[in-house]
Formats: sequence, C-alpha cells, structure tokens
Amino acid sequence: MSVIYDRVALIGLGLIAGSMAHAIREGGLARETVGFARSAQTREIAREIGLCDQITDSVAEAVAGADLVVLAVPVGAMGDLAAEIAPHLKPGATVTDVGSVKQSVIDAVAPHIPEGVHFIPGHPLAGTEHSGPRAGFASLFRNRWWLLTPLPDSDPQAVERLSDLVRAMGAKTDRMEPAHHDLVLAVTSHAPHLIAYTMVGVADHLRQVTDEQVIQYSAAGFRDFTRIAASDPTMWRDVFLHNKEATLDILGRFTEELFVLQRAIRMGDGQQLFDYFTRTRAIRRGIIEAGQDTDAPDFGRAAKTGG
Amino acid sequence: MSVIYDRVALIGLGLIAGSMAHAIREGGLARETVGFARSAQTREIAREIGLCDQITDSVAEAVAGADLVVLAVPVGAMGDLAAEIAPHLKPGATVTDVGSVKQSVIDAVAPHIPEGVHFIPGHPLAGTEHSGPRAGFASLFRNRWWLLTPLPDSDPQAVERLSDLVRAMGAKTDRMEPAHHDLVLAVTSHAPHLIAYTMVGVADHLRQVTDEQVIQYSAAGFRDFTRIAASDPTMWRDVFLHNKEATLDILGRFTEELFVLQRAIRMGDGQQLFDYFTRTRAIRRGIIEAGQDTDAPDFGRAAKTGG
Repeated sequence: MSVIYDRVALIGLGLIAGSMAHAIREGGLARETVGFARSAQTREIAREIGLCDQITDSVAEAVAGADLVVLAVPVGAMGDLAAEIAPHLKPGATVTDVGSVKQSVIDAVAPHIPEGVHFIPGHPLAGTEHSGPRAGFASLFRNRWWLLTPLPDSDPQAVERLSDLVRAMGAKTDRMEPAHHDLVLAVTSHAPHLIAYTMVGVADHLRQVTDEQVIQYSAAGFRDFTRIAASDPTMWRDVFLHNKEATLDILGRFTEELFVLQRAIRMGDGQQLFDYFTRTRAIRRGIIEAGQDTDAPDFGRAAKTGG
Repeated sequence: MSVIYDRVALIGLGLIAGSMAHAIREGGLARETVGFARSAQTREIAREIGLCDQITDSVAEAVAGADLVVLAVPVGAMGDLAAEIAPHLKPGATVTDVGSVKQSVIDAVAPHIPEGVHFIPGHPLAGTEHSGPRAGFASLFRNRWWLLTPLPDSDPQAVERLSDLVRAMGAKTDRMEPAHHDLVLAVTSHAPHLIAYTMVGVADHLRQVTDEQVIQYSAAGFRDFTRIAASDPTMWRDVFLHNKEATLDILGRFTEELFVLQRAIRMGDGQQLFDYFTRTRAIRRGIIEAGQDTDAPDFGRAAKTGG
C-alpha cells in the first residue's frame, strides 16, 4: 500500500472514524492521522488507546493542514460542524462525511464549504451495534459497499482519490444520486431499524410476559431485532429526522402491507400467507448469491449458541 | 450417555426431526430410530443419507412398537396425523410434538390419544432458515430452551423421561402453561417473523428501487430480516393460523407503537425517539447477559462479510 493522503483528520471518534483510523494505519494509507471529538472523555480514551497519531483539543487544529477531513458525527450535527471548520480548511483539501442520509447532509454542509475545497459526500454501509472510540476495527469495511454521492461540480480527480482510499480500506465503491441513496437506504436500513426498535418496545411494555421471559425465550426472530435495536440512539434519532420523507413513505407502505397479512391471518387465508412467504424466500436467495451474507446455519453460530 | 428410549419414531423428517436423529445417534440415546415422512422424495433422501436406522413407507409401521413418537410436522397437520397413528400406538408409549404453537396442537391431538399413552406437548426454541431432511445437525439444540407444556393429567415419570432426552440432546428444559407459551412466543418469535416477511415484501414491491439494489445495499437491518423471511412457508403459515389471537394481539400493539414513532418522526420530536431507542438498548444487554447471543461485532462475522 502507499500513502493516498498526507494528513487525514477524523472528526467524531466513534465506530466509523475509529475503524478508519485502524484501517488507514494498517494499510499505511496516510502519513498522519489526526483525531478530534467533542467529548473530552472520548478524546482521553482515544489518546489512551493510541487511536490516531495525534488527538487535538480543538477541531480547528485538527483540520488545519489536512488533505482529507472526514465528518463522522451524527447527521444532525454535520451543518454546525461544517460552519465551524470552514475557515480552517486548507485550499485543495477534500471534505467527506459518513452520514447515513445524504440529501440533508449536502443541504447542511455544502453552503459552508469554501471555494477551492472539494466536498464529496459518502456513506459506508458498515456498522455494528457498538459505538464509541473503542468500537472500531480495521476490517469493518472489508467487502462492504461505500457509496459516494458526488455533487454535479465535484472534481473528478478528487473523487477518484477518495475512491482509492475507500478501496484501499477493503470496501467496494459505487456512485449514486443523493435522493436515490436516501430512498434505497430507507428500505434496506432505516425502516428496518425503526421496526426493530418498535418490536423491542412492544415486548418491553407487555406486562403479562416478563422481561425475563422475553430475554430467555427470544428465538432467532426477536433476538436479531434486539441486536438492531441496540444501535446508537443519537445516530438513529438523526437518521429518522433527516430522512423523514423516504422513511415515512416506506413505513406507510409497510403498514399497508402488514394490514393485508394481518387480515389474511384473521380470515384464515392460508393460501395468501403461503404465497407471500414463498415470494420473500427468493429475495434471500439473491442476497446469499450476491455474497452479502453467509448461508451457514444460524450465521455459523449454531454450535455455540444455536438458532 | 445411556439409552433413554428403546425405539424412537420421528414423523416428518425436516430440520427438527433430522437434528433429533443426529443428536440421538451421537449420544446413543435410543436403541433404534425409525423415520417417516409423507413425501416419497423426503424418505428417499433420508434413506440415502442414513438419517435414521430405518425409514418406513407407512406411518403405522413407524410408530408400531415405539416408546417415543415425535410429531414433527407443520402445526396444521398434527390433528390428522394423531388420528392416523392412534390405533397403532403401543400402550405406555409417549407421544410428543415439536410445534411452535401449543394450545391448538393440544386441542387437535389430545382427543385422539388412547388411554394408557402419554401425550406431552413440547417446543424446542431452535431453528435455522433451512428446512428439509438434509438441514438437520446434532448440535442444533445445544444451550437452547425446549419448553414442555404437560397436561394436568400428564404422568410425572413420563414427563421426566422426556426431559431427560431433551437435556441429553444438549437443551435446557422448562415447563409452561400452553396459553402462556403461545403469548410468549407470539412476542419473541411469531410477530417478529410476520414483520420480517412484510418488510421483505415491501422491498419486493418498490419499483423505484431495483431488487439488485435491495440485495446489494442491504446492510445489517434488512439483511437480518431477509434471513428470517426465508423460513419455511408451510410451517409459518400454520403458526399464524393456529396462534391467531396472540399474534393479532401483538401485531395490534406493534402497529399502535409504530404509529407513535412515525408521528414523532413526522413532528420532528427527536427527544421522544432518543428516549425510546435508549430504552430498547437495555433489553439487548439483558439478552447478552443471559447468554442467548454473542456480543462479538456483527456475530463475529465482521472479518468475513462485515456489518
């Protein structure tokens, strides 16, 4: 591997920035990484574990002289952060973000980016339910998609250089229109997360069934939901508020569809249920074939904890 | 290990019966296993892979002389099966089932069980999204719960003997009232499955987003849903039709709750979302602490396929 950026500034030292720090160091992809986080405690932990070459106490200091600045904060904090760093950005630098929503981030960030600085929005489709400066690991992005949503006037060379970094960290990269990105992600990530949060909340409210029973007898279905519903509350609050229209559109379709199946259960229409469940099987097959998941029983965990 | 039943008849050679066959053989828990399935093709595969000591072409022959008869067919097929085997059951034998719903199975099966035969309903909380005679493996039940819902007049010794077998296959066992079982499972398994089927169906309908995009960019949320939604259509059709009331109750609560969160998104009430998501995190922690799942990033799959 060779150095792609001289100095990379990582702002917000959570799972994504932390994993980038590890991957960049492992691949020797930058001469220097500098980190900053709003929370003093996070900075302290980052220093303690040596997450970046340098952790600064001001965001201005972190971005000064950086060739690449990565905004890795919740979507709702991107605009203010962009305003704060703007005067300190180096001419010719690239600014990217890792937010799960793209149109609202572009609306909030782009107006602050000075002439001569490249803003290239991005979104790595990678994550775990863990967060914070200790959560990152170098292989998080391996074989994962990292979508870029360049603006019409984005400099092609700057986009190519950022793509090189993304690929060097092990990810696959693709380009997409911001609005289309937000709709695709509403289907594949945002709506499923809200649904999982909701189902776990229902279980929590149900007084006839104790928490202990919910926990003890949670088979594959609910257990997977609880994993999803353990994701970072601040990040997800912002995702829903900032991808409001696409998420509400998908949730509306979801509710209609759920009512159709509820009605089939109530009317005892077994054929309709059978046909529906047969169709959804095919999509799963496609995902396995696309190499996005393993076909091993219960994720290959069967022998350890079963299905 | 020592022999717990002399002759065990497994009726319906899918994932559960197949895994029982493997676990019984591995542990030397029966002197002989006999299998039967309605489908000639299933029987042929079972013979080919040597799933049981003997595969019979009639169910009467399979249960004749058996000390334990396991009904491992979809919930909706239990009643007819019980009627068919009743005249051939050995006095003193135990009949159990592995259905995911208990009250309706008891209503359908109990009236057919002859005097002197013990009927002890059961439900192993174990499974994968795979089905058929090749899907089973000996460790499926390891560390999993196997709930028994004995009837008021069930013979304590017969219940204890079945519990011994269950534990010898690696499972933990507990006893529960049938109706309470059905409510607990509606929360922890049945409603989550219907929700996952629904969400995958929504994605399939959405013409602006191609199937290819849904498949390629399915991150943790949706990908887990598709795994759940790949489960056996016949089995799940029967579960919903036979646990109708509890499932509809939970789905009703779920929809109310979802509407509350949808409204919070529409009104931009970030505090409500944040508080909700913070509460659901605690349940996940409980599940990890109860040893029902692994805390490793992305099920420990991160290095292979990421999160």
